[in-house]
Amino acid sequence: MSTPTIESTTKISAAEAFLRDFRSLSAIGETPGHGVDRQAATTADAQARIWFTSLATQYGFRTEVDQIGNIFALLEWTPGAPYVLVGSHLDSQPTAGKFDGAYGVAAALHAGRRLAASNSDDAPKYNLAIVDWFNEEGCRFAPSMMGSSVYTGKLPVEEARAIQDKQGTTVAQALEAIGHLGSGTGPVAAAYAEIHIEQGRSLEDSGTTIGLVHSCWAAVKYTATVHGEQAHTGSAIIADRKDALLGASMLVVLLREIADSFSGTVLHTSVGQLDVYPNSPVVVPSRVDLVMDLRSADETVLAAAQKLLQDGISRIEKDANVTVDVEQSHAWGINPYQPAGVELARECAEKLELSNTPVFTLAGHDSINMKDIVPTVMLFVPSVEGISHNEREYTTDGDISAGVDILTEVVARLCRGELDGAQ
Amino acid sequence: MSTPTIESTTKISAAEAFLRDFRSLSAIGETPGHGVDRQAATTADAQARIWFTSLATQYGFRTEVDQIGNIFALLEWTPGAPYVLVGSHLDSQPTAGKFDGAYGVAAALHAGRRLAASNSDDAPKYNLAIVDWFNEEGCRFAPSMMGSSVYTGKLPVEEARAIQDKQGTTVAQALEAIGHLGSGTGPVAAAYAEIHIEQGRSLEDSGTTIGLVHSCWAAVKYTATVHGEQAHTGSAIIADRKDALLGASMLVVLLREIADSFSGTVLHTSVGQLDVYPNSPVVVPSRVDLVMDLRSADETVLAAAQKLLQDGISRIEKDANVTVDVEQSHAWGINPYQPAGVELARECAEKLELSNTPVFTLAGHDSINMKDIVPTVMLFVPSVEGISHNEREYTTDGDISAGVDILTEVVARLCRGELDGAQ
Repeated sequence: MSTPTIESTTKISAAEAFLRDFRSLSAIGETPGHGVDRQAATTADAQARIWFTSLATQYGFRTEVDQIGNIFALLEWTPGAPYVLVGSHLDSQPTAGKFDGAYGVAAALHAGRRLAASNSDDAPKYNLAIVDWFNEEGCRFAPSMMGSSVYTGKLPVEEARAIQDKQGTTVAQALEAIGHLGSGTGPVAAAYAEIHIEQGRSLEDSGTTIGLVHSCWAAVKYTATVHGEQAHTGSAIIADRKDALLGASMLVVLLREIADSFSGTVLHTSVGQLDVYPNSPVVVPSRVDLVMDLRSADETVLAAAQKLLQDGISRIEKDANVTVDVEQSHAWGINPYQPAGVELARECAEKLELSNTPVFTLAGHDSINMKDIVPTVMLFVPSVEGISHNEREYTTDGDISAGVDILTEVVARLCRGELDGAQ
Repeated sequence: MSTPTIESTTKISAAEAFLRDFRSLSAIGETPGHGVDRQAATTADAQARIWFTSLATQYGFRTEVDQIGNIFALLEWTPGAPYVLVGSHLDSQPTAGKFDGAYGVAAALHAGRRLAASNSDDAPKYNLAIVDWFNEEGCRFAPSMMGSSVYTGKLPVEEARAIQDKQGTTVAQALEAIGHLGSGTGPVAAAYAEIHIEQGRSLEDSGTTIGLVHSCWAAVKYTATVHGEQAHTGSAIIADRKDALLGASMLVVLLREIADSFSGTVLHTSVGQLDVYPNSPVVVPSRVDLVMDLRSADETVLAAAQKLLQDGISRIEKDANVTVDVEQSHAWGINPYQPAGVELARECAEKLELSNTPVFTLAGHDSINMKDIVPTVMLFVPSVEGISHNEREYTTDGDISAGVDILTEVVARLCRGELDGAQ
């Protein structure tokens, strides 16, 4: 491989350079609680994106922004060849940890930097692109995984660009405002790799450094609107009321009851978002919008849970004197990553003498989109106490450094075409 | 009484003039659903306030705005004497009916207009002030009944002026922006009268035109914050979750169960306002703020309900793995209006041959504040189906016209000092 310019005014190790850059990223959009708030296309997200493009340029990459705000840092060894993509996302939840997504982009950048600086004489089969996927979190603009959904053709770009936040700002306007509404569809992918902290505690519990992600839990997500009728909280007779918030609350409780009705931890259910209208202290609510999320490693459990939900909604409509409109917004099955990719990752971990084990991912990642179009490797490092989507999220320097090491090895092999044809 | 100028370019009856003015008021801040949206100190509220001051001026009154934005339209027959106040409020809930509050101000304006135009030679004992109380609804700026609470000394003015809406705009800034941040404390009151649509169906059910309000239901209001911990909705194990929205939903359901545990309709409970944080589809909520409202005509029922609530909250904290902070924000007992005022109103109804009956008010009104400082008469007219805080709120022209008639008679007697000394 060629050797682009690397800054070397101070002699520090590759591991130290990674930790230095990751710390500078962590300071962007920092919250008083030592987490970050970098919602998609906000000022803080824009600053993180500048962090990415400026370092990538310094490390010898050329950057470009596509039509939905994905940033690609490109290194072309073999003119015209497709690219191995490696990355994650820099956007965050409103009060998030410093690792979710950001670690994956920083690790990818440093894996790329090491490969760019390596002294192999032969150009690899594929070129290299580090990617920051736009709006993985989906909190400001739903749905989540927006950038990779557009890139993989699952979401039409015009539809995505027209989606509005709660203030009525569209994705296109928000990207335009931060100067990152690009054009084109990005480089052609040959393979994809991503590393992320585990959003769970299985690696920590078993004392393992590297999780080899073999498949994701099945999930189904619904948006629901509960319709009632406005009335005066003080004067309206209880029997006359059509209280949309009562109906919505019964739904939230029902979802937990459904999770509890299965033994063990085979089913996860939640309502994370709920909006009340008119939301005044003295008005019985006429409308509540909410988002329901059900996930399981067992598709039969998920199907049984959906049936329980359906039955429960009919009961709630009667008991709370409301109507409930439910729409499935998102669903995926137990969709495995290519087994050859899991095996390749295992070989890399063994070579580097890193303890490793196959794991499920319970959370969604951009790699779930990417694995449907190209061979994909997804890696986890441990997260202390499995804390996620929380300012207290934490992974040790040793584990995040080990992650960069294995990611570098994985990406080098992907660039050599070692996963070609994997299904 | 003196005879100020009245417009008379077209000869129409007093009843027609009232209906004409009430219709012009109803068009201000009109919603697509044929209700109104005139939240306190918004542009629509400001327009309604201009409607009031311009008509009052035309009908011979001098207007002034006090330190908390209450507007008084003054008619001084007897220099230096205190004032009979009569009025209600022009602000509304976000999607409200056209009658709540607005009818009371329009009726008071026309009662005043008729008295101003009457040809009595003797100046009455008291002067007359029509009042538009600022922010009775409390939806943009909590608490409700703000203007009358400041006027009656129950809420310090500096505290009220510093209260913020959800955008961080203070009451003082909002009043300043519409040019209605006045000064002073308004006229000295000798008595108070108010008319309102019944927010319930008792008058309609019994075919009665005038409700003579004798007391208000007891009420207790709480603000509650449920504290949990942020986690990933997909990956966090159910047993580890501290889901603030689950706890809040259990509270909403509990409040309804408590109401249902009493036979008949002796207890009304509700949660009208509930805000989730961070309110993202994929984050287990860490905090939910909500407002609880319990009302009863029986103080022992209310006390029993509060005990059930307390016990239920302890159970919810355990079951949902959350903590709940509860603060009592507002409470009033079964506080009767002066019986002599109810009797005076009854005599007026009899004189006008209007069917009448004593009624409770279940909703709060500015008269609840006023009756604590001066003899107060509160009147209701029927509301079709008892619909309230809803765009479909409706009262017939016949009933609202009858209401203006009796209000005029009541106010005339109050101005003559007929309720002096009532306790």
